[in-house]
Amino acid sequence: MSRTVKLSGAMTEGEFPAHRCVPRPEELPITSTQFDARHIGPSEAERAKMLAECGYGSLDALVGAAVPTAIRATRDLVLPPAASEEEATAELRALAARNRPMTQMIGLGYSDTVTPGVIRRNVLENPAWYTAYTPYQPEISQGRLEALLNFQTMVADLTGLATANASLLDESTAVAEAVTLMRRASKSKSNKVVLDAECLPQTIAVVRTRVEALGIEVEVRDLLTGLPDDFFGVVVQYPGASGVLRGRGFYHAISESAKAAGALFTVAADLLSLTLVTAPGEFGADVAAGSTQRFGVPLGYGGPHAGFMSVRAGLERSLPGRLVGVSVDADGNPAYRLALQTREQHIRREKATSNICTAQVLPAVLAAMYAVYHGPDGLKKIARRVHGLAAGFAGALRQAGVEVVHESFFDTVVAHVPGRAAEIHAAAREAGINLGHVDADHVRVAFDEVSTPAITAKVLGAFKIDTEVDDGVALPNGLARESGFMGHEVFGTHRSETAMLRYLRKLSDLDYALDRGMIPLGSCTMKLNATTEMEPISWREFAGIHPFAPAEDAAGYHTLVGQLADWLAEVTGYDKVSLQPNAGSQGELAGLLAIRAYHRANGDEARDVCLIPSSAHGTNAASAVLAGMRVVVVKCTDEGNVDLADLRSKVDTHRDTLAAIMVTYPSTHGVYEHDIDELAKIVHDGGGQVYVDGANLNALLGLAKPGEFGGDVSHLNLHKTFCIPHGGGGPGVGPVAVRAHLAPYLPNHPLLDQAGPATGVGPISGAPYGSASILPISWAYVRMMGAPGLTAATKVAVLAANYVAARLAPHYPVLYTGQDGLVAHECILDLRQITKETGVTVDDVAKRLIDYGFHAPTMSFPVAGTLMVEPTESEDLGEIDRFIAAMIAIRAEIDEVAAGRWGAEESPLRGAPHTAETLVGEWDKPYDRELAVYPAGVSRKNKYWPPVRRIDGARGDRNLVCSCPPLNAYEG
Amino acid sequence: MSRTVKLSGAMTEGEFPAHRCVPRPEELPITSTQFDARHIGPSEAERAKMLAECGYGSLDALVGAAVPTAIRATRDLVLPPAASEEEATAELRALAARNRPMTQMIGLGYSDTVTPGVIRRNVLENPAWYTAYTPYQPEISQGRLEALLNFQTMVADLTGLATANASLLDESTAVAEAVTLMRRASKSKSNKVVLDAECLPQTIAVVRTRVEALGIEVEVRDLLTGLPDDFFGVVVQYPGASGVLRGRGFYHAISESAKAAGALFTVAADLLSLTLVTAPGEFGADVAAGSTQRFGVPLGYGGPHAGFMSVRAGLERSLPGRLVGVSVDADGNPAYRLALQTREQHIRREKATSNICTAQVLPAVLAAMYAVYHGPDGLKKIARRVHGLAAGFAGALRQAGVEVVHESFFDTVVAHVPGRAAEIHAAAREAGINLGHVDADHVRVAFDEVSTPAITAKVLGAFKIDTEVDDGVALPNGLARESGFMGHEVFGTHRSETAMLRYLRKLSDLDYALDRGMIPLGSCTMKLNATTEMEPISWREFAGIHPFAPAEDAAGYHTLVGQLADWLAEVTGYDKVSLQPNAGSQGELAGLLAIRAYHRANGDEARDVCLIPSSAHGTNAASAVLAGMRVVVVKCTDEGNVDLADLRSKVDTHRDTLAAIMVTYPSTHGVYEHDIDELAKIVHDGGGQVYVDGANLNALLGLAKPGEFGGDVSHLNLHKTFCIPHGGGGPGVGPVAVRAHLAPYLPNHPLLDQAGPATGVGPISGAPYGSASILPISWAYVRMMGAPGLTAATKVAVLAANYVAARLAPHYPVLYTGQDGLVAHECILDLRQITKETGVTVDDVAKRLIDYGFHAPTMSFPVAGTLMVEPTESEDLGEIDRFIAAMIAIRAEIDEVAAGRWGAEESPLRGAPHTAETLVGEWDKPYDRELAVYPAGVSRKNKYWPPVRRIDGARGDRNLVCSCPPLNAYEG
Repeated sequence: MSRTVKLSGAMTEGEFPAHRCVPRPEELPITSTQFDARHIGPSEAERAKMLAECGYGSLDALVGAAVPTAIRATRDLVLPPAASEEEATAELRALAARNRPMTQMIGLGYSDTVTPGVIRRNVLENPAWYTAYTPYQPEISQGRLEALLNFQTMVADLTGLATANASLLDESTAVAEAVTLMRRASKSKSNKVVLDAECLPQTIAVVRTRVEALGIEVEVRDLLTGLPDDFFGVVVQYPGASGVLRGRGFYHAISESAKAAGALFTVAADLLSLTLVTAPGEFGADVAAGSTQRFGVPLGYGGPHAGFMSVRAGLERSLPGRLVGVSVDADGNPAYRLALQTREQHIRREKATSNICTAQVLPAVLAAMYAVYHGPDGLKKIARRVHGLAAGFAGALRQAGVEVVHESFFDTVVAHVPGRAAEIHAAAREAGINLGHVDADHVRVAFDEVSTPAITAKVLGAFKIDTEVDDGVALPNGLARESGFMGHEVFGTHRSETAMLRYLRKLSDLDYALDRGMIPLGSCTMKLNATTEMEPISWREFAGIHPFAPAEDAAGYHTLVGQLADWLAEVTGYDKVSLQPNAGSQGELAGLLAIRAYHRANGDEARDVCLIPSSAHGTNAASAVLAGMRVVVVKCTDEGNVDLADLRSKVDTHRDTLAAIMVTYPSTHGVYEHDIDELAKIVHDGGGQVYVDGANLNALLGLAKPGEFGGDVSHLNLHKTFCIPHGGGGPGVGPVAVRAHLAPYLPNHPLLDQAGPATGVGPISGAPYGSASILPISWAYVRMMGAPGLTAATKVAVLAANYVAARLAPHYPVLYTGQDGLVAHECILDLRQITKETGVTVDDVAKRLIDYGFHAPTMSFPVAGTLMVEPTESEDLGEIDRFIAAMIAIRAEIDEVAAGRWGAEESPLRGAPHTAETLVGEWDKPYDRELAVYPAGVSRKNKYWPPVRRIDGARGDRNLVCSCPPLNAYEG
Repeated sequence: MSRTVKLSGAMTEGEFPAHRCVPRPEELPITSTQFDARHIGPSEAERAKMLAECGYGSLDALVGAAVPTAIRATRDLVLPPAASEEEATAELRALAARNRPMTQMIGLGYSDTVTPGVIRRNVLENPAWYTAYTPYQPEISQGRLEALLNFQTMVADLTGLATANASLLDESTAVAEAVTLMRRASKSKSNKVVLDAECLPQTIAVVRTRVEALGIEVEVRDLLTGLPDDFFGVVVQYPGASGVLRGRGFYHAISESAKAAGALFTVAADLLSLTLVTAPGEFGADVAAGSTQRFGVPLGYGGPHAGFMSVRAGLERSLPGRLVGVSVDADGNPAYRLALQTREQHIRREKATSNICTAQVLPAVLAAMYAVYHGPDGLKKIARRVHGLAAGFAGALRQAGVEVVHESFFDTVVAHVPGRAAEIHAAAREAGINLGHVDADHVRVAFDEVSTPAITAKVLGAFKIDTEVDDGVALPNGLARESGFMGHEVFGTHRSETAMLRYLRKLSDLDYALDRGMIPLGSCTMKLNATTEMEPISWREFAGIHPFAPAEDAAGYHTLVGQLADWLAEVTGYDKVSLQPNAGSQGELAGLLAIRAYHRANGDEARDVCLIPSSAHGTNAASAVLAGMRVVVVKCTDEGNVDLADLRSKVDTHRDTLAAIMVTYPSTHGVYEHDIDELAKIVHDGGGQVYVDGANLNALLGLAKPGEFGGDVSHLNLHKTFCIPHGGGGPGVGPVAVRAHLAPYLPNHPLLDQAGPATGVGPISGAPYGSASILPISWAYVRMMGAPGLTAATKVAVLAANYVAARLAPHYPVLYTGQDGLVAHECILDLRQITKETGVTVDDVAKRLIDYGFHAPTMSFPVAGTLMVEPTESEDLGEIDRFIAAMIAIRAEIDEVAAGRWGAEESPLRGAPHTAETLVGEWDKPYDRELAVYPAGVSRKNKYWPPVRRIDGARGDRNLVCSCPPLNAYEG
């Protein structure tokens, strides 16, 4: 918005001595408050205090000392001037207005649905849910863990399989994970996987992208023609992409053939249809995968949605992704936790079988709550209704002489209309309806929860049919579901809105999220998720777009995606950005696949070695393996930096096969390494590409650009640096940014040309723009901060980390520091000596922090026995000081252990966290109740009470229980 | 939405034996769930259980037995068929699209403003805030009480007066209350109040409506001409309606003149301007009143907004409305409560000085949080900006040769444009801007927080001026504010969005609202406030309309108001409904003023006796007095019914002066009286009108209509029966419904002809449709329930009350029952004998219920020593049974007192509520900790912990502290 009225600087103070009554032009904001002052926690006065503690006179002096000059950006960022919150909202409204939410009958795995208002308002729009972190601290995450257990129970029940995980990224990547799972679990020596020709086209394409580098052969085949002799796995879409349902014998036969071949059988299933037809587990499927989108999660131009996977008994320990299990706490009460954690948080580097290290928690919670709200009978009612409309429509077509391709289907009808498809599509659009494109002679019509008889009539009108519609049945003989599902009480007791509201409140009250206090997680950048950033994702113009709608329906999205990609390129110093990857891990994979493709295009097919420093995130190595690379570890120095001598040696050794190095900057040790440019030079000289992991970009924005200091490619985490909330463990967005020479190898999409280069590596996500509907969050953040705001945020983030380090260093050794003894945006507190001397562990400190009203920092990463703290720029000094005071008080408790007042076992540290319930029984501890629950500084009126005590992790892993236990197990 | 596709009933079951796969037409809902099944708590199976407990085989049998046949409606309600939530939303979107939110520069006390997103989402859209009840149970209301104390502090500080109340209904009624306050407090014998001609026109009109019946003479006068000799009070608008600010001497002189006359001086002030100009208290005002709308509360076509009033020291005990004060709890910790309660909850019947028995808590919280978010410096910055724009605009006008009427002003400029006003208005509208209409030669332009230089340029364009705009100052000499305000820490520590979010979460966590559990308040009907009902109030098309915008801008509102009024007339059996009254008390007053006007129109000027049964709400008598009537009390029988013999006698006594009877139906005793038709006949025969208080309409909807069984007029409470949330103590809407003969005397409005009859009594609220922006809530409720849904809700509400009565009768005597021993929609539990025998009081039971996780029922109304329970239709059987179990367990505790296990003083009943903090210290109670906080049935994981123990009310009233105490007083 331009200022069309010029304001002169001239002003008469008049008789107002105390205050300047009229603002000078330069202090006249377009509205009353600029957003950066709301996003950044510490005020000017607080910053001055913090700087003094660090021994610097200004932010610039501190940053100048901390950040190596060699990497400093040579110019300021060039971004649009910061918009106010109201202006950004107005611009987003204008973008939204350029999207056209139509009646979407395209199908292909995306169906319109009704998000119950009570769930939208109290989950999707509630910071208590969306600002939560991944439930790695299970004691303070019981609410969302219960919600996820509901999700797992729902999926396992509906698919008829033993164990479901807590969600995957989307249907297509879930099927790709199923393929690699089958490869691992199959006894067949074949490297071939067979995909039903009825699989969703985007799924086939994602599987091809994902498995090509692994040497897996993909055969797409009409399964009516049978199966090949040799294969390790087969995937059937159920119902098929064309809507078709075969007879039960068909599916049974595939299962038998797979068994005979020593292969596994995956069913990509539609959950709503499973309320009416036989569950995959009942006809022999080993694995089911798919999407829960149509359970109340908006289309959102393709995402985020929760994919799912469930497996038969015996495969549960091979499941990728996260799994919630039931264990017990220190008092023996049932408690939830993430099971088999080593597969997830501590991803097993090059031994990993998947690089999935996140889930889609928020969409999974929405889907689970949709199931809780409707219950099994409600879901069946919806399914019958959808099916009845589709069958009635097919009957009307046939009656009017139009051929319907399939006799049996659930919700999708393909009509054979020789030469008329274009005309029918056009007529339907005229009526506000998008139908599915097949070819010039066929039209696909997919019904869903929002379909009505009136819509049926309009679609028939597009076919020029004006007839009465009877209801009908079009399910194949023998396929009716006989088994019950979702019999657990939770799916039967929250049917009124009042009951649902209270259940949601109850669960959210169990959890600790950013709306209660600081979550100082190293490398996870838990900063403000501002309301103005969040509100647009609920708007129908963003929520109501099908990912395969005609491009003109998504004009607003395309502009937004283009602008955001440009801004991200500007802030990272790269040339091109793809927003398709819907998690950081997928961005990594996309980046490595681009490197792989680049080398192959240059004839360097032998280049497959990926160097990874020993300090790297586990995901790096896992992604490299998935990209068909061999991992070679590079040592780190005692200071935590990459050992350049070792690097040179490794580069020499692998000079002919070097593909890339993956390096995080600032390092995972939270330090600005000084040799990053030298490191890049060494690798480039060796013929390798430099992958800079963007996990720590919050320390760089506005100060330095990976694309300028040596990186060829980076992925970013929009859910860290760019304010997409963690959602309790997803969704995330992991864009991949590359220099020009890699741009031809970015992801693309078979259903939308403009989504990526024609020479691209194929799709990395099911939807052209991945988790498109949450991109407005990051767009708004950049738009409202502008270049100065983003740069200030980085500086304050660095200041906050250095302030914490300076204040805590007398109490806990700070493990690594860089230039001038400064850290970057996080610091590592080393407890190893303390543990050795006292027996008090990082776990003890982490759990004790709960008693003090905090979420723990990152535990034992990147170094075992340490805590990594990242305060971010959004925490004000009051909250940072509260944290510091708690850490100092905890140190004093440790000293009491050291002094022999308590043994570590009997100390409040080991007893932590303390529930309110512990206060009422006999008290046999050597410290008093007050110290247990109200240690120094804890509010008596506003204390967060953990609902359970410390959870026994090992026991939960030994006895894996991953669906809802009976209700009477809960209340002690 | 019509179903254009016919569905035949014919269906082939096919091979689906277990489930009917395809719905029959009659079970094919337009979407998957009908709303009534979500609104009504008990499922069919639960209803059957409840009926069995009551001894009835069907709902109809129960209702047939409970409701007298004589009053039963003769036909079913005629309302549109129930819409689904999605359909209702679509219809509301269509209505909203017919409103036109323009740039609003009309002024007259309503200014556009920015609601900070974090406050909108976390207060206005958060059930923890909006489903709370009035804080009559202060121990579980500390969060909103703190918010209201912030409100009081903000108002007192800005106005420079000692004590502010916790809000009034709107500016105009606040000024009317100030007038009657001045009359009470003035020593002058005059009956004249002088209103500045610069007072807002709607304020002048509301004051006239309100004081006419009280015999107060209103003189509207240009105060530049001085004051009359004799008057009891004077009201000055500051700045004036035309924007004018006079010199300090002017205001000082008025103060001196008032003092000399023994009169009081009220300033109707704009809070934002007070950040820059001298506070009213500093130039001698006794009272300040006004609106806090522009502090972040949307225009909403006129309401709801929080009015305010503050008074100088010495007048605090005369303040109308609610007042939050600071006291201490049983442990000596500071705690908030409503002070001087007798003026409020227990309104003093005919001795009351005001009938205000509510506040505008939710809008007051919004305004207070806006002040917390911006702080004093932020508010000043906004004010300077607004003023700078206005002054710059005036300068540009002058420079272009246009006369600006006033030299000094804050935000509003009146231009003298002979003959050109219409043309300028039209040009401004062309540019999307509404200016203020004055007359053919003048235009008023009011600037506000959302004004920008670009808007200034557009307005100048409408004047055909294209000039550069300088900034300027236009405040009068000597009027600069020198004093500070809002120095309390709370206004300086929540400036970042993160900090604000946590403050809001912290406060809401202190409170108990419907999102945690049942609030079984007799006569207050705490039912579901559904999300679908609530969402539209945030839409800009409803929120962004100025109440005095041209009618064509509010076409959607007018249709909605018309439909809702028609539906309310249908369900009550009346002929005409006015939605203007913005609280039940105002509806009462409007109804009584209609009766008064009717009698006077018939020449019956002597008819001024209002009969009121002894069981009536206190407000009834207060309203009657305010309507200029004399109250005569009619006795009740031992059964709680109106004593018809006494009624006949009173009617005889007052046959020539009888104006009306006010009666609640079902009675405040929760019983369907059988003689209501006879009662009405007696009063009608005596020449009186019958006022049926609609407080208990939730027992009647669909079963009986007051307008058919004898009522001439009723007010309804949309915040009870029609799902507007209580908002923690407001806003409410109190429509008045009348039979045709009273329709000419409904409220109207001087600024909108269509708002009421030309013969009406004048406005009862500042805005033509009162709290217009929350009317979509009730509209959506009726639209989604339809006639069968509304009727079913009533029946289930009656069932629930009878179920509670049946289950609890063995433990607590049920005081009154009607026909067949049945109650209506609530029941009274009589504790008087228990108290006599054991010393355990209703207070003890109420506070002990907190330990069990409940809000108490209504205490000691209508009968001292009793509890009145209204479960409503929205509570499911699980929650009702949980309540019953708690009451039975409490009864067992009382029995222990009776048996001598504990004295009443030492019992957990008297010790209640127990905080978590009580658990950590020495335990010297004769019961154990577990019984204190986890009595039978209380969840250990999800317990609601009250933040304070029982509060000492008397002490708080003796030592009145009504603004924020220093922070260090808080944390123990």
